[in-house]
Amino acid sequence: MPGILRPASRIHYERDGVAIYRQSFAIIRAEADLSRFDIDQEPVVVRMIHAAGLVELAAQVAFTPGFVEKARAALRCGAPILCDAQMVASGITRRRLPAANPVLCTLSDSRVPVLAHQLGTTRSAAALELWRPHLAGAVVAIGNAPTALFHLLEMLQDPVCPRPAAIIGCPVGFVGAAESKAALMDEAPVPAMVVHGRLGGSAMTVAALNALACEEEV
Amino acid sequence: MPGILRPASRIHYERDGVAIYRQSFAIIRAEADLSRFDIDQEPVVVRMIHAAGLVELAAQVAFTPGFVEKARAALRCGAPILCDAQMVASGITRRRLPAANPVLCTLSDSRVPVLAHQLGTTRSAAALELWRPHLAGAVVAIGNAPTALFHLLEMLQDPVCPRPAAIIGCPVGFVGAAESKAALMDEAPVPAMVVHGRLGGSAMTVAALNALACEEEV
Repeated sequence: MPGILRPASRIHYERDGVAIYRQSFAIIRAEADLSRFDIDQEPVVVRMIHAAGLVELAAQVAFTPGFVEKARAALRCGAPILCDAQMVASGITRRRLPAANPVLCTLSDSRVPVLAHQLGTTRSAAALELWRPHLAGAVVAIGNAPTALFHLLEMLQDPVCPRPAAIIGCPVGFVGAAESKAALMDEAPVPAMVVHGRLGGSAMTVAALNALACEEEV
Repeated sequence: MPGILRPASRIHYERDGVAIYRQSFAIIRAEADLSRFDIDQEPVVVRMIHAAGLVELAAQVAFTPGFVEKARAALRCGAPILCDAQMVASGITRRRLPAANPVLCTLSDSRVPVLAHQLGTTRSAAALELWRPHLAGAVVAIGNAPTALFHLLEMLQDPVCPRPAAIIGCPVGFVGAAESKAALMDEAPVPAMVVHGRLGGSAMTVAALNALACEEEV
């Protein structure tokens, strides 16, 4: 290939992907306070910190008992992964999935705008109505919209609504994010994990899912 | 649709998407110290804070002079948007783009693993070699890999390498992220912006791009 890098122009930095991962995880384990987490939870939190670039994230992460075990078991059994945003769906590393699990995001479905209008809510929330046929035993990954997490909690207040196996609740932001995650941990309709407060987002949601999907770190 | 939400089960929260955006931006402008930024930069920083859920992000954002103007002009003229990660590409709001700009991520190209081996670097870095035909006048959005940003700086040390119009440099993490962004601002081969330090990632990169693409906030 013409124009490819000439050795003279090389800057000094780590170019080995595996070494970068190992060094990153070592720095995180040296700096972050992970003492609250059990042996199942710790690698999930480490990978979320890695995605966020923020060791202080550890203080905001919370799990209901048995979450990691339930989520891992569901994924091994082929559970679909239901995502509130396309960025979450696109970040999931398909080769880490244990059972070629389907990854679904309904936000761009053409029925969503009408549904949002009928329900008087956001498109992110209304899109979850299209999850119903896939919800039983699924792993839910909400990494963007507080209204999506609130809507899911409302859906699950109905005893006939199918139950997901586990919920990753990491919506981000300034209006409703903290409140929706507090409500998830209060109600805990199924095993769940959250990042409390305003922090959240697709990167840490994806990191949690990728850590649950495969126990290998590098 | 059977099983749709019954009014009795509704939790109290803001369901109006426009109101959520407006309240969010008002909270950010009340809490964040934005005094360093000019009138062009301020909405970009606000949108990045919105995506991160972190008002303290403002202290880490830096621009070279004229960056916002150059990036906006390039996008209006149809510049391609070159992304280091699929999550960045998938987060860009296509309807905000002023000229149906092409959005390109070469990381999954089948030639990348061989190229990475030949160059002795990561796949994220090697993928940028495939940007060369699209690089002249492009807007670059690096939101994941420090090695990608380092590799771009090395490419641009070669005077025959085409110049992008502007670079958003927001790789995240613990190994090379801070260093690669410091190098970008030191060398400033073209107009650039960064989030200094370990923070970064696809969400804030996408937020910056979406703010540059369209001046409407809501």
